[in-house]
Amino acid sequence: MSAIEAKSQAQALAFAPFSFQAAMALRDLGILEVLGSVRRPGLPLPELAERAGVSEYGVSVLLDFGEHLGLVEGEEGRWALGKVGYFFLHDEMTRVNADFTHDICYDALRYLTRAVRTGQPAGLSSLGPWDTLYQGLSSLPEPARSSWFNFDHLYSDRVFSDLLPLVFDRPVQQLLDVGGNTGRWARCCLEYSPDVHVTMVDLPVQLERAAEEMKAAGWTERVEYHAADLLSDQSRLPAGADVIWMSQFLDCFSADQIVSILRRARQVMGGEARLFIIELFPDRQAFDAAAFSLDATSLYFTCVANGNSRMYRYAEFARLLEAAGLEVVQEWDGVGVGHTALYCRPV
Amino acid sequence: MSAIEAKSQAQALAFAPFSFQAAMALRDLGILEVLGSVRRPGLPLPELAERAGVSEYGVSVLLDFGEHLGLVEGEEGRWALGKVGYFFLHDEMTRVNADFTHDICYDALRYLTRAVRTGQPAGLSSLGPWDTLYQGLSSLPEPARSSWFNFDHLYSDRVFSDLLPLVFDRPVQQLLDVGGNTGRWARCCLEYSPDVHVTMVDLPVQLERAAEEMKAAGWTERVEYHAADLLSDQSRLPAGADVIWMSQFLDCFSADQIVSILRRARQVMGGEARLFIIELFPDRQAFDAAAFSLDATSLYFTCVANGNSRMYRYAEFARLLEAAGLEVVQEWDGVGVGHTALYCRPV
Repeated sequence: MSAIEAKSQAQALAFAPFSFQAAMALRDLGILEVLGSVRRPGLPLPELAERAGVSEYGVSVLLDFGEHLGLVEGEEGRWALGKVGYFFLHDEMTRVNADFTHDICYDALRYLTRAVRTGQPAGLSSLGPWDTLYQGLSSLPEPARSSWFNFDHLYSDRVFSDLLPLVFDRPVQQLLDVGGNTGRWARCCLEYSPDVHVTMVDLPVQLERAAEEMKAAGWTERVEYHAADLLSDQSRLPAGADVIWMSQFLDCFSADQIVSILRRARQVMGGEARLFIIELFPDRQAFDAAAFSLDATSLYFTCVANGNSRMYRYAEFARLLEAAGLEVVQEWDGVGVGHTALYCRPV
Repeated sequence: MSAIEAKSQAQALAFAPFSFQAAMALRDLGILEVLGSVRRPGLPLPELAERAGVSEYGVSVLLDFGEHLGLVEGEEGRWALGKVGYFFLHDEMTRVNADFTHDICYDALRYLTRAVRTGQPAGLSSLGPWDTLYQGLSSLPEPARSSWFNFDHLYSDRVFSDLLPLVFDRPVQQLLDVGGNTGRWARCCLEYSPDVHVTMVDLPVQLERAAEEMKAAGWTERVEYHAADLLSDQSRLPAGADVIWMSQFLDCFSADQIVSILRRARQVMGGEARLFIIELFPDRQAFDAAAFSLDATSLYFTCVANGNSRMYRYAEFARLLEAAGLEVVQEWDGVGVGHTALYCRPV
């Protein structure tokens, strides 16, 4: 990178919040959509403003700035959708990430420096009066609530169908779903296998909501609920499971906490029990953009969620497994959207 | 641009507020400075965390994300300052722009969509209860106040020394400083020419502050104050000036307002009077990064300052001059930091 490129990038960083909010405005005002609906060479400003229902002035400042970002392209007084704009409008992952940034993280991120300094999720107060975001998940106001669950499910939904055959390649009687959230994985398992019994482990407030959703989906048999705050070293996991399942769960804890939780899992693992850990590791991604997104998500953990967890590098995560007395028997990369599945056993 | 590059850029946009706040945290926690003070291959994480006085966890999430942005570079467990980080730390313009974004614009920008929809500076309420930012300038709290004036002066200070010889290449008795702000240009003129009398025109609240600063600097003679709100078509400019001066002033108004103000200036211009207009035109910049910064500044006008002004393209500005019955006699590009000076006369 040349010095002048580096200086330009530093300048662009200084205005990055403008870039984000301009992209959101171009999207949410329908300007990108109008541009996407017309052929090249596109629309003159007055017609675009009329179709989008906003002032020419307002459209023009967004277009002039958006052109630098590749969101739109102007030539000889006519405007068309840019390549970046096409993906900002149509790519589902980009849309879900952008909504998550806007509705959950934007206000909170102004406290990132404080969060790092104090070890507390200093931005969380912009959403509600909780110690961690998990305590507030079920009472988040809209649109924050939808944006959070869409973000969470975007990354979890796609992974489940890939993983069911791996988990159920042998009979499973008892599956312990640790950090079961809204019960999506539990329902997948109950549907997939007529034999399996699922015990969901989560915070009481989360389990209440999960139980409601399970009932609404018709699942009252073969599912149990075990309330536990695994942050407390005193909390134990129930014994007797064939499969212990932790999908995008351990990234919600600090390194020390992970070792403690994994040790407690190991203590209740019988002779044939299998521990499945599903995580997104930045150092096991095929695309730079994926690693970038995951490292951004770490800052969400730092500033909003809990103040001390992250998306771990696999290199570090392997050390935590070792410290807990576990070994990886088998592993699968590239399941879901860049997930890695680890099948672990006590050493 | 390939489709995959465009998609990556859309993804990066979705997380752009993370990029900005991570850069600010790396700067304000002193991490960039520590890295800039050591030789390659740099510092291991524990030592860096200790020197910066923050947790290893906090430093690690910032480093991992900051590496994607070129702010830092990690290799074999050691961390060094990246090229982008060098400029984010040391380049004065980048620092001033970043502080301006952080302290004036960040909270406000979340209302950009609303600002465009309503034509009001919808983000201004995050700073204070004013109709336009100009009414609140003298009562802004710190650090917003310093960040605004540093931003304003960064762009205005450097231009003045370039312009004095152009303006005073012939005798000037009466100079009308329209939108005189804190009086910096007025003081430059009074110091440069022992003959000139300056009349500052601005809002009453601005003039009060300017008068204080003028007195503090020892200037009570040869300076007068003319309070006027030029948004009102009724307000008139005083006649009799040799030079009417409008430096980074007209960009605070809408296109219609500019024509109205320029017509009122033309009406008081005698036979030899010269009108100087100093502006930053995005379409007359040597560097893309400069045009990018100016187009970002337009969004500041939209969302924070007044809801209807911008950094105009010269192509459009020329039409406004024409509509006001003015012609450009002489012009200078590249004065100050990318400014254009226009010497105008009635047609």
